[in-house]
Amino acid sequence: MSNQNTHRYCVIMCGGIGSRFWPYSRTDRPKQFIDFFGTGRSLLQMTFDRILNLVPKENVIIVTNLQYEHLVRQQLPEISESNLLLEPCRRNTAPCIGWAAAHIMARDPEASMIVTPSDHLITNEKMFEQCVEKGFDFVEKNDALLTLGIKPTRPETGYGYIQIGQEVEPGILKVKTFTEKPDIEIARVFFESGEFFWNSGIFLWRGKTILDAFRNVAPDLTREFEKGSDLFGTDKEQDFIREHFPYCPSISIDYAVMEKASNVYVECVTFGWNDLGTWSALYDNSPKNREGNVTQRCNVITYNSTGNIFAVRDEKVLVVSGLKDYIVADAGDVLLICPKAEEQQIKQMVNDIAARFDDKYL
Amino acid sequence: MSNQNTHRYCVIMCGGIGSRFWPYSRTDRPKQFIDFFGTGRSLLQMTFDRILNLVPKENVIIVTNLQYEHLVRQQLPEISESNLLLEPCRRNTAPCIGWAAAHIMARDPEASMIVTPSDHLITNEKMFEQCVEKGFDFVEKNDALLTLGIKPTRPETGYGYIQIGQEVEPGILKVKTFTEKPDIEIARVFFESGEFFWNSGIFLWRGKTILDAFRNVAPDLTREFEKGSDLFGTDKEQDFIREHFPYCPSISIDYAVMEKASNVYVECVTFGWNDLGTWSALYDNSPKNREGNVTQRCNVITYNSTGNIFAVRDEKVLVVSGLKDYIVADAGDVLLICPKAEEQQIKQMVNDIAARFDDKYL
Repeated sequence: MSNQNTHRYCVIMCGGIGSRFWPYSRTDRPKQFIDFFGTGRSLLQMTFDRILNLVPKENVIIVTNLQYEHLVRQQLPEISESNLLLEPCRRNTAPCIGWAAAHIMARDPEASMIVTPSDHLITNEKMFEQCVEKGFDFVEKNDALLTLGIKPTRPETGYGYIQIGQEVEPGILKVKTFTEKPDIEIARVFFESGEFFWNSGIFLWRGKTILDAFRNVAPDLTREFEKGSDLFGTDKEQDFIREHFPYCPSISIDYAVMEKASNVYVECVTFGWNDLGTWSALYDNSPKNREGNVTQRCNVITYNSTGNIFAVRDEKVLVVSGLKDYIVADAGDVLLICPKAEEQQIKQMVNDIAARFDDKYL
Repeated sequence: MSNQNTHRYCVIMCGGIGSRFWPYSRTDRPKQFIDFFGTGRSLLQMTFDRILNLVPKENVIIVTNLQYEHLVRQQLPEISESNLLLEPCRRNTAPCIGWAAAHIMARDPEASMIVTPSDHLITNEKMFEQCVEKGFDFVEKNDALLTLGIKPTRPETGYGYIQIGQEVEPGILKVKTFTEKPDIEIARVFFESGEFFWNSGIFLWRGKTILDAFRNVAPDLTREFEKGSDLFGTDKEQDFIREHFPYCPSISIDYAVMEKASNVYVECVTFGWNDLGTWSALYDNSPKNREGNVTQRCNVITYNSTGNIFAVRDEKVLVVSGLKDYIVADAGDVLLICPKAEEQQIKQMVNDIAARFDDKYL
């Protein structure tokens, strides 16, 4: 768009391993790189497409693991060399965001930015754009760390919640507290109170504001990055990161900054969001066939089977009888059959596989 | 063995397609060619090995479909060209046996023979040998069609039964009737009466006796073969078969001959037999692991799962949670998940697959 604000940036965090979708998502091709909905675009590509109406293409920064460089280049050839930040190791979201902010500030001290995961589903993109525009306007006028809070549609136990405080302008409120994933009783109370919103993990702020916040509440992390303060934006940046990034603590932005800073606000939004964090979430958000099963574009014949999610790669034909509410995921060398209700055990299963067979199955 | 009777022959019927074990058994590699028990020998090879103590190797005739010629040659390189009878099409057991008998009689008018399927399991081979020796002795002295009847160990509904009549010598009795697969009520009555034996589909007779029987009770079939009576045992035999075999009616030996002839006898045996006709039969006859699952040599991790049979080819790792009494069979391009109790539907599933996708999955 010609009238896009050239000081607005987007940071897409793209280094996760998607272990909860194992074995459909594998360490060598995590969830964000998969065309989950059969649209021809991966979740990363959908995230990129969605942001282009808000931020100039040249201002989209991808942070990913070195291991996935080829996948990002393949899927987003539009991203220039200098906009691709390659982490040498996994250190959760705080170091990722700290680096991206330092990188952007070296290029543009006036920068504001949206920081977003690469693997979420957003169903109402028009509304998303309006919310983000409003968020940018707010953080550009205020020294604020802004998070997007999703109005809950059910008592979900799989998300963190944000308790709202005082409204500072329509739809934007002070954050009272962050809350970890609740049990179902608590989730029901949260849901009914109207005071709690889902923590989407999508943030907006000015570069200066987030670096100040790091300096105030995460001095260790700041100290590590300040060792290279002259190098960001130069051709020595990547070498510096390769040497120093491993010494950053592995910590989330919520824990390192958002829960500690005093200038944290939430914009309450309703644009249809799901973090696609689990097979059940994917099931809930995917179109069902006549029998009530979700088939990830695979060839399936079912008998007396409903509520299942079938994710089988390639040309394979799946014949299923008498199965209710299961995940069946085939990734060529691994086949998983597991009740949806037990999907939280998948991480343990992956560990068991590695212990008993080989890392290659991860 | 040096003292083997050179007039004794064995006909191994090896042309079946094993559709009840789909997709582990496929039309391009049916059950008899699979190493089901991980012994390093296929069911066909086990059948061949078992017979070598009874019949000279040169007298073992394999009848199979043209389509499986390469598999037989691969698995039984000991079989000479002239002992391999290749059916141009499937016509059930009566034409198969008629041809084999005519072929053997052209080579040796004194011949007696055992006719056996290639895909059954026999657990007590020593006892099998003794029974077959006794059977040979009986048919060589008597103008008799002899079938091996297995003493039932349970009220099985998956087998045909033979009702016994008068004993003619110890362990050999006149057959009163053949009975189709009974329902469970009838099967219980049969089992408790002690008068009914399982029809194993293993037969013994002299060549002359079976050809006489064909002539008496199956004149249509006899007429078809007699058109080439001068050609059996010559290099024109296979051409004759290729032309005339398709005109034979598709009919079982039980229905065409055994149920109609008057000189039918049964030798009652207890050598541990299973026709491996179903996944459940395979389950019952295979060693279980600690969790009560049968794993066809595949890499499986189970959680809260028992009573299953897992048949997954190659290097694949299978992770299964919360599954009880299922068949999980993966054949690369097809994956079947089906309760053992519903395995009789597999034939219908195979038909559905062919109708909806492609013959290549059969």
